[in-house]
Amino acid sequence: MIPELERVVEQIAALPGIGRKSATRIAFHFLKQNQEKVEDFLTSVTQFHSKVEYCDECGALKSRHLHCSMCTPGQRNETLLCVVEQPSDIFAIEASGEYNGLYHVLMGALSPLDGIGPDDLRLASLPARVHKHPALQEIIIATNPSIEGNTTANYILSMMAEFKNLKFSRIASGLALGSQIEYADARIISQSLRARTVLE
Amino acid sequence: MIPELERVVEQIAALPGIGRKSATRIAFHFLKQNQEKVEDFLTSVTQFHSKVEYCDECGALKSRHLHCSMCTPGQRNETLLCVVEQPSDIFAIEASGEYNGLYHVLMGALSPLDGIGPDDLRLASLPARVHKHPALQEIIIATNPSIEGNTTANYILSMMAEFKNLKFSRIASGLALGSQIEYADARIISQSLRARTVLE
Repeated sequence: MIPELERVVEQIAALPGIGRKSATRIAFHFLKQNQEKVEDFLTSVTQFHSKVEYCDECGALKSRHLHCSMCTPGQRNETLLCVVEQPSDIFAIEASGEYNGLYHVLMGALSPLDGIGPDDLRLASLPARVHKHPALQEIIIATNPSIEGNTTANYILSMMAEFKNLKFSRIASGLALGSQIEYADARIISQSLRARTVLE
Repeated sequence: MIPELERVVEQIAALPGIGRKSATRIAFHFLKQNQEKVEDFLTSVTQFHSKVEYCDECGALKSRHLHCSMCTPGQRNETLLCVVEQPSDIFAIEASGEYNGLYHVLMGALSPLDGIGPDDLRLASLPARVHKHPALQEIIIATNPSIEGNTTANYILSMMAEFKNLKFSRIASGLALGSQIEYADARIISQSLRARTVLE
């Protein structure tokens, strides 16, 4: 194999979900494209990487130098706060059309086996967010229906015990155990939001 | 969705074999990488696209400004010439370790339904290549075991009828009908090269 091909295949195969054969196929796809098309692709990656950041407040993705659309006052239903593991979960939930409240991204889930404890997640700022939104009535815990996600949900429930006036709920898992919200169908997400159960 | 994400997901989803959900996952993967890693990726694509070209002689991929390693005299067994559809087929065949002869890339296969006729392929230069290699004894036709690949094999056999002294063979299809050489196992390719049958 020639070195430029070797290198690009290695880089593409390092992307999640892509093996060496798919990577080779993608490399040859690039070769068939004209200069302009390849540059469009490269520019989109550069722009995405350099102009997108996480909101300090809720952890959602936002364009740099713009206000976070999820945190702009008056835009969302401030009686609800939905806790998710990843920023990408927000897109899946928004696509369901079932939810218009606030979000709080943890940037992961508790996983003692992987050495991920409470301090590695955006958990410490959760009480402060509750204080900041006096209209808040319910926290929907939408972590994945996995062991880690369930553990995290229980942890949140106990760390937030002081908020006696808040209702805590967990999205129903019409989602199969072990699956990931990020990749779920909009209809399944819709259903699991509607059928959410109150945590006692 | 924010515009930079929308754009990069659209670009990634346009790559072969990648849907919108995988594209979103890859975009988030980029976001997790540091500047340097993302630049390594982008540079590898740019370098590949700008520094790689097809050899005028055999049609294989080569680094620009370098001689084609498949055409350098004395490097390969010049009694054998293997005809393939795509430059990427060469890598699959080389990986089998079963073959050390010359190559001739057609850049496709005959497909009347798609409007691909003999003039759209690198067929016209095939007789000239035979004349250029007096040691040549056998032409192995390694087009895909598909209707188009088989049609192309038959076409080559009739257009090369003048070369009475050459043996023409077709790789055996231990490969399932309709599959593609590019994605086949090295062992299957190995076996189909060994079991090639002489065409009469």
